Amino acid sequence: MAIEPRLYRGMRDFLPEEMMPREELLHTVRETFRRWGFAPLATPAIEFKEILAGKYGDMADRLIYSLEHKSGLALRYDLTVPLARAVATYGDKLPTPFKRYQIQEVWRAERAQPQQGRFREFLQCDVDTVGTDSLVADGEILALSVKLLSDLGFPNAITKLNHRALLRGLMDISKFPNESEAEVCRIIDKLDKIGKSGVHEEFIAAGYPESCIETMFELILRTGNNEELLSFVSEKYGNNERISRGVKEIRQAIKYAVDFGVPPESLKLDLSLARGLDYYTGTIFESYNPEQPHIGSLTGGGRYDNLIGLFTDKKAPAVGVTIGLDRIFAALSDAGRIESRQSPTRVLVTVFDEKLLPDSIVLATRIRDAGIPSEVYFEPRRMKHQFSYADKLNIPYVAILGENEINKGVVALKDMTTGEQEELMFEEIIERLKS
Amino acid sequence: MAIEPRLYRGMRDFLPEEMMPREELLHTVRETFRRWGFAPLATPAIEFKEILAGKYGDMADRLIYSLEHKSGLALRYDLTVPLARAVATYGDKLPTPFKRYQIQEVWRAERAQPQQGRFREFLQCDVDTVGTDSLVADGEILALSVKLLSDLGFPNAITKLNHRALLRGLMDISKFPNESEAEVCRIIDKLDKIGKSGVHEEFIAAGYPESCIETMFELILRTGNNEELLSFVSEKYGNNERISRGVKEIRQAIKYAVDFGVPPESLKLDLSLARGLDYYTGTIFESYNPEQPHIGSLTGGGRYDNLIGLFTDKKAPAVGVTIGLDRIFAALSDAGRIESRQSPTRVLVTVFDEKLLPDSIVLATRIRDAGIPSEVYFEPRRMKHQFSYADKLNIPYVAILGENEINKGVVALKDMTTGEQEELMFEEIIERLKS
Repeated sequence: MAIEPRLYRGMRDFLPEEMMPREELLHTVRETFRRWGFAPLATPAIEFKEILAGKYGDMADRLIYSLEHKSGLALRYDLTVPLARAVATYGDKLPTPFKRYQIQEVWRAERAQPQQGRFREFLQCDVDTVGTDSLVADGEILALSVKLLSDLGFPNAITKLNHRALLRGLMDISKFPNESEAEVCRIIDKLDKIGKSGVHEEFIAAGYPESCIETMFELILRTGNNEELLSFVSEKYGNNERISRGVKEIRQAIKYAVDFGVPPESLKLDLSLARGLDYYTGTIFESYNPEQPHIGSLTGGGRYDNLIGLFTDKKAPAVGVTIGLDRIFAALSDAGRIESRQSPTRVLVTVFDEKLLPDSIVLATRIRDAGIPSEVYFEPRRMKHQFSYADKLNIPYVAILGENEINKGVVALKDMTTGEQEELMFEEIIERLKS
Repeated sequence: MAIEPRLYRGMRDFLPEEMMPREELLHTVRETFRRWGFAPLATPAIEFKEILAGKYGDMADRLIYSLEHKSGLALRYDLTVPLARAVATYGDKLPTPFKRYQIQEVWRAERAQPQQGRFREFLQCDVDTVGTDSLVADGEILALSVKLLSDLGFPNAITKLNHRALLRGLMDISKFPNESEAEVCRIIDKLDKIGKSGVHEEFIAAGYPESCIETMFELILRTGNNEELLSFVSEKYGNNERISRGVKEIRQAIKYAVDFGVPPESLKLDLSLARGLDYYTGTIFESYNPEQPHIGSLTGGGRYDNLIGLFTDKKAPAVGVTIGLDRIFAALSDAGRIESRQSPTRVLVTVFDEKLLPDSIVLATRIRDAGIPSEVYFEPRRMKHQFSYADKLNIPYVAILGENEINKGVVALKDMTTGEQEELMFEEIIERLKS
């Protein structure tokens, strides 16, 4: 009996139609990272569980896929822990600072049936600078993120930014207890999703007093341009050390990002930006396309000075950004900017009959050698079949080579979009297909 | 206590030095596949075990990494079974023929401690045409494999070829029993590794009579050019149906490959070529670089008409080739053709002092915007430190921008290879770095 060809829920196949633009997107991403002097790193999918669990503790047990293996192995959950492991493994073999990008799959054992848009396997894309606390690195990562989005077709993307120390200072002012930072950040992070009232409810449910919550809201929901907000908090609360450090650092990071070529209007200070993860220590940011707010954030990152040193006794301050490839792809699709093609082929060379088959192969080869993706149909089947193959694959041109054409020294080229057919010399075909 | 940053044996990290040329290699490979009209497919790492085991049966249990999961999940072992599963899943949504390439990691739970060059995770690179038994497809896959090796720097690679039906016919002539094909092929496949005497021993150990073995050796070790060998077997044993089919098909496949642009002298019929895997049914081939025989085969493939239909009731004849990326990379390294670089950066812009830091950032940005990978040092540290960073990363140029240079409207550019330093205008720098 045949085995049913099932796929585990939350796993995806990428058929050519989707895979072709994804590969092109990745190529642009890699080229951009390289132009900024970041170098690629790759680590294995399988690591020791104790290493993967190093960062997340309990959460690890819930979210990591373990292997049936006596050595205690599991699949990587993110690319941050492998980076920390690599930094410890290679030590001085790596440069300081270490500017690396890494684009690899990660696996998350989400318990619930994955919703629309939640996957158990996805391609994670991280770029980080490890080993410097210079704010130039923060400005560079910010700028790289903004310019990459611009390269990918989102020149008007907005990057919201904030600073964990600044946010922490505002918590002090609002009289939240010292140890509540992680929880408060996790709750505030839901603001976009559940709104002010939802966040309010969660704070109450978590046992925080109404007065703290109200003061906090007043501070973090304040509006104004970057300089207005920074002047306000520094003038009013500048004697709080965290606030004064946060204001100074965020000002500096913005300034450097602008030196790196970022349009100043694309950076928007948002005192309510928290980022959910515990480990951020400085600058934090998230980018989105204001023309497509429903897609959510396209990139996000920040400074995290205490994580990469996890497996070593050296300090390894770090700042980085995650490029949300699935989101970016969704945004490009949503904007109708993904060309629907099922094949890279620009021209299908049809086969007139058995005898002329070699002529068609030679023609396809010459076209390909001129740099144009081409293929020859495999059999002298009825023309109808050959055209319908080209149609199904959205191949834009079909070349026909019969006795007639061979005698005249031409090829009949059919434009599959307009239906027009012309007799052309070989050089004319190349010119046409290159344009 | 710190967790030891160990890596499971047989798993590899790829540091920038290795990862940069690997990414470039992969880019060329993808571009070549696309120029030949093959389209990318990607499937998830995790599949149901019953699907992965469908092909290999017992072997599956030994070689597949299972997950600790009640749904019976495991990691893919190759890209052939996922292709068969996708062909069954998507049916008519895919074109016929379906020309696909797939470049993804696979995992093999090798029991023994992996030897040098044996890995438990590696990047598999397959290109296949599914859904046609036309020998044009065999010729195309053969030619693609030869031309890809040429594009990658192995223009003199030799492709040994044979045909399973032909080999099977020679087994008939040698009076091997009908059901021994798989075993005989597996033993003959070791010829390169263990030599004639080793193969002889294995045949004896497997219980085959001396007379069969001797006749077989006489036939398969016969030397001569392609036409000599084909004429010999077809004249002498042409009444064996398998031999006559094999001869006809291999002749045709060679002819088409030549039409597709393969130099005839690069294709060498070798009647002892067997390929280890059971599933081949027609043309089989393997390529190697005669200048580096110790590296082993760089690509290998053939026709396998009964495997891809595994999960469907339709026939799905297929022909394909595996590109041995690790071997190709080893061959390029071995030939000294991998440039040793730790960073994509072409020029490091140093930082003279705190005050001039923004000028350096702006200069690095202008150079980058002109398309040249560049970065700025993160701090106004002593020049010695900045130069040693460039040195460590093999960055070929360093740009210096002090008060002096700014007043003169120039930049000092130091060539790190020659040690020469020149004062240049911005446009001159771009010209220099582009050359």
